[in-house]
Parts: sequence; structure tokens; C-alpha cells
Amino acid sequence: MTTEPLGVAIAGLGTVGAGVARLLRDNAETIAARAGRPILLRAVSARDRARDRGIDLSASEWFDDATVMATEAPADVVVELVGGSEGVARAVVEKALGAGRAVVTANKALLAHHGTALAVEAERRGLSLGFEAAVAGGIPIIKALREGYAANRISRVFGILNGTSNYILSAMAESGRAFAEVLSEAQALGYAEADPSFDVDGVDAAHKLAILASVAFGAPIDFDGIHIEGIRHVSALDIAYAAELGYRIKLLGIAQRTAAGLEQRVHPCMVPIGAPIAHVDGVFNAVGIEGDAVGAGLLQGRGAGAGPTASAVVADLIDIARGHRAPAFGVPAASLAALPRAPMSAHFGPYFVRLTVIDRPGVIADIAAAFRDEAISLEALLQRRRDPGETVPLVLTTHDVAEASLDRALARIAALEAVTEPPRIIRVIERL
Amino acid sequence: MTTEPLGVAIAGLGTVGAGVARLLRDNAETIAARAGRPILLRAVSARDRARDRGIDLSASEWFDDATVMATEAPADVVVELVGGSEGVARAVVEKALGAGRAVVTANKALLAHHGTALAVEAERRGLSLGFEAAVAGGIPIIKALREGYAANRISRVFGILNGTSNYILSAMAESGRAFAEVLSEAQALGYAEADPSFDVDGVDAAHKLAILASVAFGAPIDFDGIHIEGIRHVSALDIAYAAELGYRIKLLGIAQRTAAGLEQRVHPCMVPIGAPIAHVDGVFNAVGIEGDAVGAGLLQGRGAGAGPTASAVVADLIDIARGHRAPAFGVPAASLAALPRAPMSAHFGPYFVRLTVIDRPGVIADIAAAFRDEAISLEALLQRRRDPGETVPLVLTTHDVAEASLDRALARIAALEAVTEPPRIIRVIERL
Repeated sequence: MTTEPLGVAIAGLGTVGAGVARLLRDNAETIAARAGRPILLRAVSARDRARDRGIDLSASEWFDDATVMATEAPADVVVELVGGSEGVARAVVEKALGAGRAVVTANKALLAHHGTALAVEAERRGLSLGFEAAVAGGIPIIKALREGYAANRISRVFGILNGTSNYILSAMAESGRAFAEVLSEAQALGYAEADPSFDVDGVDAAHKLAILASVAFGAPIDFDGIHIEGIRHVSALDIAYAAELGYRIKLLGIAQRTAAGLEQRVHPCMVPIGAPIAHVDGVFNAVGIEGDAVGAGLLQGRGAGAGPTASAVVADLIDIARGHRAPAFGVPAASLAALPRAPMSAHFGPYFVRLTVIDRPGVIADIAAAFRDEAISLEALLQRRRDPGETVPLVLTTHDVAEASLDRALARIAALEAVTEPPRIIRVIERL
Repeated sequence: MTTEPLGVAIAGLGTVGAGVARLLRDNAETIAARAGRPILLRAVSARDRARDRGIDLSASEWFDDATVMATEAPADVVVELVGGSEGVARAVVEKALGAGRAVVTANKALLAHHGTALAVEAERRGLSLGFEAAVAGGIPIIKALREGYAANRISRVFGILNGTSNYILSAMAESGRAFAEVLSEAQALGYAEADPSFDVDGVDAAHKLAILASVAFGAPIDFDGIHIEGIRHVSALDIAYAAELGYRIKLLGIAQRTAAGLEQRVHPCMVPIGAPIAHVDGVFNAVGIEGDAVGAGLLQGRGAGAGPTASAVVADLIDIARGHRAPAFGVPAASLAALPRAPMSAHFGPYFVRLTVIDRPGVIADIAAAFRDEAISLEALLQRRRDPGETVPLVLTTHDVAEASLDRALARIAALEAVTEPPRIIRVIERL
């Protein structure tokens, strides 16, 4: 194995880019010992050369244009930290591969949309494409799926994949406050973006789930096959009822093999309070797997931030420095085999349903009839307050049921005059 | 990369050996896809050829003598599943390396005593030595430390490393029963051995901790440097008081860098009920790490059993098949640098102390004086029952204190006439 230094070029010097530069400097000795050779930052590119990033980059060549750097930098590997699924980020990765350079990226949006094609191109050229940092940076889950659990047929991969949403749900549970209030606080603290949509509407978690599912199941990335719901409609009332019923509410991404095909979904879930993932709070992420040999596993760590993301980027660089070359998705990208999409309507499991009803005689009978006619059996029914003539919450949980049946029952219930708001459902996950 | 099959020889066909053979057969296609080539079982050896292991081994060459197989089998890799730190297991590994074969082993005792020397020998010959299965089989923690977290300086690694002890402590907490009773039940269920000493006295956990510490800190394995206490002295009363104070009791192995050197210890710990590791119950294991870039991470999974252990063995085989060759301990074994041992007396932290005292005037004053004279400040003091003239439990928790100071105070307290049993301490871990 060569002991020549591995040269690195970084495109994008935001929090993560500066974090990678700092980690390569601060832990240079540890990194060289584990990589078998030094890893040196040879070139950098960002929009604003003048900005103070708190680190001396004068030993690295500066490029105003990251796409030029991708082909011309004196580097073996290009680290793409620009972000976004198109534009400069995509061009940097494509040009770097085209110029025979390995690529490491933290860009989940790019991978969710173009990951399979990029991996095919990288493997065609015998180049590495590393993306440990794209999913739950502080958790070495890509390596675990691709190598650590490689002997297993994976039946399910799931997790808390978005720290912002998890922070908001944790804070709501702790304080009893409403979504909007906690979101504002998270924005003030810098835990949520000014436009929080990617995080709280589940898109970011879905990008990561798409990547995880591909590595777990050996299938091409199928982002468009994901059913996505965010956490905006989770109310303080839902959280209080969850606690009463022995659950916590978490935004999970779940991909699993079912008889109907590959089910991929991101939505709020009720998880049993006794499950370890129920205690993964704040900005922490967790990823669970189920394999036929290994059984259940759960990995936790910080999902984002300069340190954890840089840790993942540099781990990929160390693999490249060692000449360790597993295919990006565990099996050759050209051999990834698509799985049929299981529609959400075919999902089978228990549900939590919250109705808002006017408390008057006959309402519960009408609702019960709608469930009965779809052969849905109820596990629990809670109507705590009694305010005749006023609207009250009516909460129930079902036994296992197909979502299509539940949808039909709820459509009928929603049409009842005494039901004043759209029914809210939260899927319950008993087995974690 | 070659696409020739990788030939494997298995020494030892107990539960795990048969499990590896079965996994190589059942998941052959998945394994070949991820390994880039088939992995074939070419030879086997065990004590009793006639025994029915529920799997057809007729396609593999049989050896009566595993040490002969180690050098003569038509195989690239020898998998050692004999067990024990000396004798046949050690001979098989040494002979296999001597004959130029890679080795994969699940043998923590062997590694805890001879791991560094074996790794030096393997690396001198350019051979792989895989031992993912030796520590928490269902958790790919060796790979995570060596590769996934490779960019980090690790400050602490800790975990629930023995499923039997964890099962017993979980069952005690759930049922309120005593250690001896739960142990008998665990033995009847097959969760504990007839001679449970290795498990319940902390030796097995210490073997694993020694290996983890070496990979985490780049130091030679130092099993003799581990302070070891088991769970025999944990009483139902301790568990009840723990719950009352907001803790769970877990047998943890902990290795951390301190100002006094490397602290390695296995003992029962009080962990806060809010910490995720407090909810890792039954036969599950968990390993936590702290790295300077990644922050805190926690990995959970099954610790033992045919499936999880086989999963880890085959993951190592897949790495070897791919030609992926990181040094066994993350850095070249010959460069592992010893760290000074921090003595247990230098440990600094909070403690739970349970005394058994005769309830009479002046006792608490005498006890308080002993703590005061060592400048130990108390966090809580609980004496629930009041039975003048009878023995009662007196429980207290301390703020951070050096263990040497606590030992001196407790020696003085133990000598008091009113103190009728040796004081019991359980170390409290607040930061997890």
C-alpha cells in the first residue's frame, strides 16, 4: 500500500466544510495512523474567499470555481459540501468523477435524486463514492449496513433521521407546548432553519431513508416511492394522549420488505415508551435495523453539526486512503435491482385516531358503526371530558388494520355532522 | 479484484460454528454479492464427527484435528470457534497464521490474553485477523471504532458487554427478586451457564472491554489492568433504592482516558433512568463511545447467540474476500503504545453507599463524621424504616469524590459497632 499522502479538495466551506478542514488539521496524527498515510487538504473552494472561517487555509490552493477545482485541483479526492440536488453540487461531483477523482459527499438531496447514477458512474471508473456523512453523520450506519451487517438479509431499516423534528417533538413532550411555539424557539436557538419545511415536513428524513433503503435492500434509490408526512399536524393533545397510552411520538423513516413490496414511509409514529428509540431525544438520531441473522440493532448518535458530519467525511477519506473499496451501495450499483412499491394503502398495522366531535347522543354509535362495517376492531377508546353540546376530543386505537380500510371508515366518519374537524391518524409501531 | 471463491475452514462446530456454516449456506447469494465473490466452506473440524448439527457438512473436508486443519485445509481463512485462551484455540490461530492463512475468531479470552501478539504476527505476514464476533456479536463495534469513528480521538468507550448479567439485573429490576433466585431461573432457561462465574463475576465483560479499549485508544491489550467486580453482591434492596433515586443498575465495562492514565473497569453502575443505555434490557448488549469530533454514540444489539455471532464472523469473511485490510486494532499492532494504568483508587465520581446499621442514637452522627473528615459531601441520605434497636439499611449518595477517600471513610465506618455488615458501594455514572 502506498504511503504517499492522500490529497483532498473541499468544495464548500460552510460549517461542515470548515469542520472537515479543522478535523484534518487537529487530528492529523490519529488520522494518518489509521489511514496508513497522511491526508492533506490541498485545495478549497467557496463562494466568499474573504470570510473568516476561524481556520488558516493558506496552505491549500484556492479556487473561485468549485467545478474548475473538481477537475484541476492537485487532489485524489473531491469532498462535495455545497449542498442541493442540482447546480454546482451535482456538477462538482460529476466533473470530479469524470476527471478520475474519488468523491466524498454529505449531500443527501443529491444522492436521493441522483445517487444510483452517480454510483454507477463511479464504479464504471473504479472510483470511490463515499457518503457516510449524508445520513445521520454521527452514526456510521452506511458502513454498518454495507459491511458490518453484510451477511444479513435486511427486512427493515428505520430511524429518527431528522434532528430538528426530533428536537421539536422532544420539547413538545417535555413542556406540553404547541408545535408552532416550539418551532419558533428552535429557530431562535438555531436548531431550525428560517424555512423549516425540509425538516418538519419530512423531506430531509425521506432523502436519508431513500439512501438507507438502497444500501439495506440492494435496490436503486427510489425517493419518489416514499410516502412523506411531517410533524406539523402533531398536536400537544396527541402527545398527551400518547403518554397516557404508554407511547412517545417520533418522526420515523421506515423502509421494510412486505408481501406487497418495499414499503418506504416517513411520518409521525407512536412508539412504546419501553422501546430504546423512545428515549432518543433532542437533536440525536437513531437508526434501527432487522437482519435475519443479527436480529435487531439500534445505533444512536448526533445527526448533524460540524463535528459529527466531519467525522463521517473523514472516515470515508480514511477508507479511500487505505484503498478499501466496497461498492457504494454494498453491491455493484449496476446490479441494484428495483423492488415493487408497496402502496401506503396496503400498510397493515395498528393506528391511533383522534376525532373532534360534538358531544351528543348517537355520535359514538355512528363512529363505531363505521369501524364495524370495515371490520376494524378497536383496542381502546378514550373520551375524557364530557361537555354535552360542545366539541370534545375522542381518541381511539385500533388493532392491526389495512390503511385502505381505515381510510374508508374515516371518510365516512369525517362526513358525520357531529365530527367537526378532519380525523387525525398516527400510525403505531409496536415492534421496535 | 479476484472473483475466485474464498475458501473457509471452521474449527469448532458448536452453536456458533454450526450457525456460521448455516449462514454461509442460507445467505450465499447475498454474501457473494456483497463480497464480490462466493465464500465457500471447504473444511470443518470438531471433537465429535457423528453429532447431528442439523446441517449437511458433507461437501466440506472433515479434520479430526483442528490444528492439522489449520495448516492443511484447502482454505484461505481459518475461523476459530473452539474457545478458551490456550490449548487448541491458540494453537489453531497460531498455526493458521504460520501457514499464511487469515484468521477470524470469536474468542475474546484468547484475544484478551494474546491479541496484541497475534495481531503483530498476522500483520508481519500481511494476513488479516478478524474478531468482530469476539465483542458484542450483534453490534459491529470493532469496525465502527476502527473505521467508522477513525477520525476521532476517543476519550471513553463503555458498555453492557455481558448478556447474562444484563438479563439477571433486568429480571431482578422487573420482579424485585434476589440475585440467586434469578440466576437459577436463568440457568434453567439456558441464559446462564451451570458455572456462571465468567458471566456474573465480570470476567467475560472484562475480556471484551480489554479488546475495545485497545481498538479505541491504540494501546496494547491490558487485561490485567482492569478492575473487575461482578454482580453477585447487587441486592434487590440496591435495585429498589436505585429506582427510588432515579437510576437503573447495569454491569458496565468502562475504559476512559483520565489525567491519571487509562482507567479500565468492570462493575455494577447506577445509570440515570433517562439515559438510553438504562433501557437496554435482557440479553441485549450496548456499546457507547465518546469521540472529540463525533460526540456521543451508542450502538445496541444482541450480544451472543448463533445468529448474531455468525453475522459478525461472516462480516469479517466478507471484508477478507474484498481484500479490505485495515489493521486489526485500527493502527499497526507493532505501533500500539501502552498507556499508564490509572488505579481504581484514583477514580473520581459520585457513589451510592448502602450501610446496614443498628438504629440507635448517634449512629448517623458517627457516620457523617467519617465522611466529613474525608471532605466527602453527601447528595442524599435515606433511612426509610425506623426500628429502634434493629438493623436497618442506611443509603446515601455522594457528590464527586476520589475512591481512595471514600475507601478510608468506609473503613472507619465499617469498624463502628453499630455497622453490622460490610458497606456496599455502587459507582454512579451521571454522564452517559
